[in-house]
Amino acid sequence: MEKQYRIEKDFLGEKEIETTKYYGIQTLRAKENFDITKTSLSLFPNFIKSLAKVKKACALTNYELGDLTDIQKDAIIQACNEIIDGKFRDQFIVDPIQGGAGTSTNMNVNEVIANRALEILGKPKSSYDIIHPNNHINMSQSTNDVYPTAIKLTLHELIYRLKDSLRFLRDCFENKSVEFKDVLKMGRTQLQDAVPMTLGQEFKTFAVMIDEDIFRLRECQALLKEVNLGATAIGTGINTKPAYQRKVISNLREVTGVDYVSAGDLIEATQDTGAFVHISGVLKRVAIKISKICNDLRLLSSGPRAGLNEINLPPLQPGSSIMPGKVNPVIPEVVNQVAFEVIGADTTISIASEHGQLQLNVFEPLIAYKLFNSINMMRRAFYSLGEKCVKGITANEEVCMNNILNSVTLVTCLNPILGYEKSSSIAKEALKTNKRVYDLILEQGLFTKEELDELLQPKNMVHNYEKDEKNEDYAD
Amino acid sequence: MEKQYRIEKDFLGEKEIETTKYYGIQTLRAKENFDITKTSLSLFPNFIKSLAKVKKACALTNYELGDLTDIQKDAIIQACNEIIDGKFRDQFIVDPIQGGAGTSTNMNVNEVIANRALEILGKPKSSYDIIHPNNHINMSQSTNDVYPTAIKLTLHELIYRLKDSLRFLRDCFENKSVEFKDVLKMGRTQLQDAVPMTLGQEFKTFAVMIDEDIFRLRECQALLKEVNLGATAIGTGINTKPAYQRKVISNLREVTGVDYVSAGDLIEATQDTGAFVHISGVLKRVAIKISKICNDLRLLSSGPRAGLNEINLPPLQPGSSIMPGKVNPVIPEVVNQVAFEVIGADTTISIASEHGQLQLNVFEPLIAYKLFNSINMMRRAFYSLGEKCVKGITANEEVCMNNILNSVTLVTCLNPILGYEKSSSIAKEALKTNKRVYDLILEQGLFTKEELDELLQPKNMVHNYEKDEKNEDYAD
Amino acid sequence: MEKQYRIEKDFLGEKEIETTKYYGIQTLRAKENFDITKTSLSLFPNFIKSLAKVKKACALTNYELGDLTDIQKDAIIQACNEIIDGKFRDQFIVDPIQGGAGTSTNMNVNEVIANRALEILGKPKSSYDIIHPNNHINMSQSTNDVYPTAIKLTLHELIYRLKDSLRFLRDCFENKSVEFKDVLKMGRTQLQDAVPMTLGQEFKTFAVMIDEDIFRLRECQALLKEVNLGATAIGTGINTKPAYQRKVISNLREVTGVDYVSAGDLIEATQDTGAFVHISGVLKRVAIKISKICNDLRLLSSGPRAGLNEINLPPLQPGSSIMPGKVNPVIPEVVNQVAFEVIGADTTISIASEHGQLQLNVFEPLIAYKLFNSINMMRRAFYSLGEKCVKGITANEEVCMNNILNSVTLVTCLNPILGYEKSSSIAKEALKTNKRVYDLILEQGLFTKEELDELLQPKNMVHNYEKDEKNEDYAD
Amino acid sequence: MEKQYRIEKDFLGEKEIETTKYYGIQTLRAKENFDITKTSLSLFPNFIKSLAKVKKACALTNYELGDLTDIQKDAIIQACNEIIDGKFRDQFIVDPIQGGAGTSTNMNVNEVIANRALEILGKPKSSYDIIHPNNHINMSQSTNDVYPTAIKLTLHELIYRLKDSLRFLRDCFENKSVEFKDVLKMGRTQLQDAVPMTLGQEFKTFAVMIDEDIFRLRECQALLKEVNLGATAIGTGINTKPAYQRKVISNLREVTGVDYVSAGDLIEATQDTGAFVHISGVLKRVAIKISKICNDLRLLSSGPRAGLNEINLPPLQPGSSIMPGKVNPVIPEVVNQVAFEVIGADTTISIASEHGQLQLNVFEPLIAYKLFNSINMMRRAFYSLGEKCVKGITANEEVCMNNILNSVTLVTCLNPILGYEKSSSIAKEALKTNKRVYDLILEQGLFTKEELDELLQPKNMVHNYEKDEKNEDYAD
Repeated sequence: MEKQYRIEKDFLGEKEIETTKYYGIQTLRAKENFDITKTSLSLFPNFIKSLAKVKKACALTNYELGDLTDIQKDAIIQACNEIIDGKFRDQFIVDPIQGGAGTSTNMNVNEVIANRALEILGKPKSSYDIIHPNNHINMSQSTNDVYPTAIKLTLHELIYRLKDSLRFLRDCFENKSVEFKDVLKMGRTQLQDAVPMTLGQEFKTFAVMIDEDIFRLRECQALLKEVNLGATAIGTGINTKPAYQRKVISNLREVTGVDYVSAGDLIEATQDTGAFVHISGVLKRVAIKISKICNDLRLLSSGPRAGLNEINLPPLQPGSSIMPGKVNPVIPEVVNQVAFEVIGADTTISIASEHGQLQLNVFEPLIAYKLFNSINMMRRAFYSLGEKCVKGITANEEVCMNNILNSVTLVTCLNPILGYEKSSSIAKEALKTNKRVYDLILEQGLFTKEELDELLQPKNMVHNYEKDEKNEDYAD
Repeated sequence: MEKQYRIEKDFLGEKEIETTKYYGIQTLRAKENFDITKTSLSLFPNFIKSLAKVKKACALTNYELGDLTDIQKDAIIQACNEIIDGKFRDQFIVDPIQGGAGTSTNMNVNEVIANRALEILGKPKSSYDIIHPNNHINMSQSTNDVYPTAIKLTLHELIYRLKDSLRFLRDCFENKSVEFKDVLKMGRTQLQDAVPMTLGQEFKTFAVMIDEDIFRLRECQALLKEVNLGATAIGTGINTKPAYQRKVISNLREVTGVDYVSAGDLIEATQDTGAFVHISGVLKRVAIKISKICNDLRLLSSGPRAGLNEINLPPLQPGSSIMPGKVNPVIPEVVNQVAFEVIGADTTISIASEHGQLQLNVFEPLIAYKLFNSINMMRRAFYSLGEKCVKGITANEEVCMNNILNSVTLVTCLNPILGYEKSSSIAKEALKTNKRVYDLILEQGLFTKEELDELLQPKNMVHNYEKDEKNEDYAD
Repeated sequence: MEKQYRIEKDFLGEKEIETTKYYGIQTLRAKENFDITKTSLSLFPNFIKSLAKVKKACALTNYELGDLTDIQKDAIIQACNEIIDGKFRDQFIVDPIQGGAGTSTNMNVNEVIANRALEILGKPKSSYDIIHPNNHINMSQSTNDVYPTAIKLTLHELIYRLKDSLRFLRDCFENKSVEFKDVLKMGRTQLQDAVPMTLGQEFKTFAVMIDEDIFRLRECQALLKEVNLGATAIGTGINTKPAYQRKVISNLREVTGVDYVSAGDLIEATQDTGAFVHISGVLKRVAIKISKICNDLRLLSSGPRAGLNEINLPPLQPGSSIMPGKVNPVIPEVVNQVAFEVIGADTTISIASEHGQLQLNVFEPLIAYKLFNSINMMRRAFYSLGEKCVKGITANEEVCMNNILNSVTLVTCLNPILGYEKSSSIAKEALKTNKRVYDLILEQGLFTKEELDELLQPKNMVHNYEKDEKNEDYAD
Repeated sequence: MEKQYRIEKDFLGEKEIETTKYYGIQTLRAKENFDITKTSLSLFPNFIKSLAKVKKACALTNYELGDLTDIQKDAIIQACNEIIDGKFRDQFIVDPIQGGAGTSTNMNVNEVIANRALEILGKPKSSYDIIHPNNHINMSQSTNDVYPTAIKLTLHELIYRLKDSLRFLRDCFENKSVEFKDVLKMGRTQLQDAVPMTLGQEFKTFAVMIDEDIFRLRECQALLKEVNLGATAIGTGINTKPAYQRKVISNLREVTGVDYVSAGDLIEATQDTGAFVHISGVLKRVAIKISKICNDLRLLSSGPRAGLNEINLPPLQPGSSIMPGKVNPVIPEVVNQVAFEVIGADTTISIASEHGQLQLNVFEPLIAYKLFNSINMMRRAFYSLGEKCVKGITANEEVCMNNILNSVTLVTCLNPILGYEKSSSIAKEALKTNKRVYDLILEQGLFTKEELDELLQPKNMVHNYEKDEKNEDYAD
């Protein structure tokens, strides 16, 4: 069937738009002007929904202030609700990386809502005298308040979901820490043999690390609750009625169910991207710690013969196109890469943020793009790490124990019982003969095998200390 | 129509694969294991083609060494050629960010070639006893030599295309520098009025900057010509015949038409990602300079009334959803963002590269992904900058000239003629009265208008110097 | 006078140490081994004091547990107190960037305290049978708990001082915002003329930004209160008595006057550098915002004739070795550079943190070095910015006002009064004739000069909105 | 003795300067204005010498053009020569990080030369009517050409010295590669057992890596030979005679003995910091590779019992304040930290470079500071790594060999001789019984011990391939 077109125009001229499309001329111009990522806004369904929620709050406010008719309001609200329900996602075609501080994204939303609202009213698309993308959908708004507000709504939601993935991952480690609680092994500092610990303690550490990061994420979510909606162009609220700003925040709370508040100084809030830098820093923190955990998992599972070989990661795919039977730590490896990506994204976000000028930071589209991507990649990576890797980890208990029995550290631990002189001579003998310290102790009849094995119980090897009673006050 | 399936198996078990698909079980496992970017290899058609070229060179070599039959060879070569021609792009479904150092990408290619070759021979897919993804397509190879070799082929090609975009952009600036050669304006250091120059010189500077970057890119392309094909697993060439390595490089030259050579030390070449870091550094250099140019364009076009307003960028879209008639520098703004992205990508690539361990850097998939994306985004951005922005720039000659006529700098320039004392008194008068220096000079009858206007010709205001005769030896 | 030497030895051999020096053989070895920065620990007096406070808390605890005699304890405490008072700073000679996870720093402190304590007791230096650097000063400790604890104490203190500098800077901006409250000027988005605001609002924004950063710094100081003292080598508390850990934290609180608590999981706390990454991220946030402010100050003061010229920065030094009378924005320029340094330091800290392995992060010396330097440089820069730049800023009111009177924006503001049609025609006329909009309005007799000037009062030009009543709950 | 003072003044007022000091009022103002790093220019003696060389070349040129008298010229040249010889280093007191694009550094040099020249002529300091810091020492110059030219001279020299340190380090690895040429060991990919290689090959790899980096450094040194001397304020050569620019470059070549040339476009060269970004990228590349090598050394020397333990690093200092006898890889650890510092410095340099505006990059002081520091730290670190670590490395041959004998890889290598079926059954047996593959082969009488040991000679285990004849054309 032949495509049909309608015409729209602006001060630069006319353009043909397919009749079936809900977007209009400004979206089309933006599509042509920005062709950088070969992706579109539809990559970020949460962001589209957040934009629609903001538009809905604005429309309700404009209606309350008498600036929209019942008919207009009802149609606009229905259109917003449909977008919030996930419809029309394919109509959001502009490149997420764009010049103009997000104007193109804002206009894409304005145009889709306007044309859908017109359709609801039984009017042809582009009948902008009835419902106009700028005059009605964008009424009392500017890209400069709508766009960052929608970014904050989106991040708030995405961080919830990120925390869920971290809780899942923490639980995976926690479960393993219980499973491995009796596996005695060598603790290492600077990759050198140090003192005994249990594999359970090692995995518990990972769980605790993640727990702290969840706290930090919760903390920084609070920064997202402060929005500049109502600020319009530069924060002076130009083009709005005095009551608008107060009411629109209240409506936003209603629409989202989240207790958003107005920034204290709207001029400041309109130009400041500090909260985004802050969140990026916290995301980087999370990424760095998970990357460290993955490094450890790869190290502990190295081998099987020429490595540490203390744990086994579950095999997921043949590891080599040339070495049969080789199984590689592919999941930790991919998670490491996500972490490196997030660290680089933080550099990008920092530079973009530092380049704000005067009353606006025009680089918010890049900031949002990087934050959304970082969170999405991390969430997927964390579920993957928990489900496909951590859950299936098994311990090589014998290898772990042998490292202790072999080690001069064992003498250090027995020092209080054997006395310094005896301990020393065994240590020297071990180094000279390359024998296991365990065997030397038995050979010399210092303990019976039963006695020695009892001493080597984790409960006797791993020191316990009395806890400081105040320590639950802080999470980090 | 109902989907039909075939079964493949590996040491982890069986999987069903749609009969119409050319990939096999290992591709499917990888697809399940790595779900990070929500994109696939098919984003990078150049990379797919490069992989097929490498496979083709390998197949030719194995044939020459008597390890493939004529029938196998012909079918494999045809399959490779079809992929090189752009077919089967939708069969490359693995996530470009993956664990396993690229094994999944390599296996995706191996499986598609094997099954297409089988099809050419009239055999059902998965008849791997006839042509096997590992035994035949990957014969004498390892991911660890095939994958980085294909990355280098791809980068070599992409940098050619990037240089084309830079040449285009340079020409746009060059043309403007001729157009603006007589527009006298104030040169600025530290954003403060300094000494006169022409707008043509300012734009010529941009052209020269870009020219140097093209030289630097050419230089770093040379680093890409050294490949480790034939190294197999760790660089010792295990699983290859002695003559293989020499012959395969020769065949690679034949297949690609580019004079690739073997790395001097294959063990080193297999683990070293220095060339990638180097190229990323040069890309960052290019990005930084173009970003500086965009900053300048935005600054020079600021206004129209409350800014420098020396040039006008062509309007591309309505600039504000709230301020009618406002036109923003959207193209330079989006190019800035691409530059910030490239700078962040360099951080990511640096970290990934530093994490190589022992005989391999397992993070090459991320390195390749970031490099490919950076180059692609830059290329698109540079064409856009030239076509949609630079070409349409116009000068506000009067504003430019007025800045000179207003400025105390004018006195400095006339100092040699007026003498120090007179100059000084005019400068003081200008600062006190806020009058234009030009008007004061005329008022005081120091020159006639004609004399003064002649002195203000660019040729008299912008100093000329004798050139150092050696200066063409260097490009930077 | 000839230098005199004493001899110390360890398992690697003997070394001569000048008799007047308080450090011993391990410090000397470290001095020889690490010669990277050409600086020494004495650069960071706060850190030396923090280390002494930790040692004091440990000595008190060991005494309470019966492991030090009264004589030993008294001498050690006095030595610690003297260091806390700022003495012996020149005895801390090891390079702050060192291998060994801070062991050399710890031993430098142990040796200085031991030898000073011996001197107090009237014993010759190196009489380690009486007071031994390891056995007594380092008793119940490891570098791995002492060193990070002292870093946290230092950061806690340094951030207090940083906040003071920010408060000072905020007040400077706040004062200017009052001074400039009636200066009407053009607000700009994307460097393009937008809508009116006051210069006071612009400066108030800077004050508000800084205020938020002070909040964020306070928040992250809390992360520093959790220490791992008592963890010893890997967090299992090996070599300590059960009651030690609890008591030592209590003594640390006593010694410092700050309510430090024990980390919940000492194994985790010993290897985790998350708090340092977090703080670095917050410091970067602060740096980015101040850098943005400095960019704005440089932009607003650009000119005097060929720039925005809305404000004047106080002249501090002749600005050019060639252009007489040129005054440059040297203080904002140097503050920008400090910000760039802090952003780079964050990259370094992130990488160092990500490289922790198993039970320890051996790169804490670099992390501490970068954090200390970043904070110190920022503090100096912020005082400098406030005192030498912001305090002396003056406004060019006429320039600011003219930008409004010139601008089409003025029509927008008068739109509600003049009506759309009239406004439009004036705007077109202004663009065509290049006349000031203000003059056109008067020419056409639309207002009297008095009426128009009244309309141009800031109170009439800058929109007011009703505040959301919940907005004081959040600081960002 | 009481200090004596002289008075100098500028347009901001008067200042007292100690009579013994060679610097003047502008240096003093800069000292007060910039108090950021608590260091001074005297940290960089090469830079001071380079500045003096540039000043000398300029003075010679001004003399040749008739603008300095014989007496002035001789005194100035002698003063420059003395500084080039290392004198007056303590007179360079300004902070290397400064606003004003290096003006303060330039004026510090101008004042010291002027006052020393006056002293040579028997005149009191500050007799600027005879020799003036601006009028004579800075004649025909601007900070904007002198300062970056001196930075390039300095970098050129420092990179020479850096290459020396790399050559030394390469030789250390090369020597070890010969020493370890017969030590068979397991090659590893993704930390998993892969295929055999020799420890000699592993160390040879490190030597080859470094060799390539030396090539890349040589390449980028060429970028430093192009200078903008003669450009003065913005590149138009204002305030110079037509012949000056050509002559001054020629004199610079004479003074330095290096074939510097003039940049092709001086306006471009004055604002472009591309060469600095480029060099920073190459330095980062070097740092990343050395860091990777250090990671490997730490991994290979991990243990002694619970690690890979293939090599021993020489003990340099007691490794733990708590675990007696522990020896840590402190030198690789400190070199890693230098690398992390260099990577962060590259971020800082990139940001500073991107912030150039219009005709100048005012952030060159920071760029120079970071580059100088990075190179100096790297040079010290590389000598240290070679001398204190690599030279003393020993191999644990037995451990290395046992990893092979233990490994299923051994079966893979014997596959061609034993046949697939037999190989398979041995591999399975080995995995089931945990026995060494070597022992199983002997048990089953498949080879005699002599035969098997012969097969296990490195020459038989490590594949050889025919070299591609073209491969010496490229260094990377």
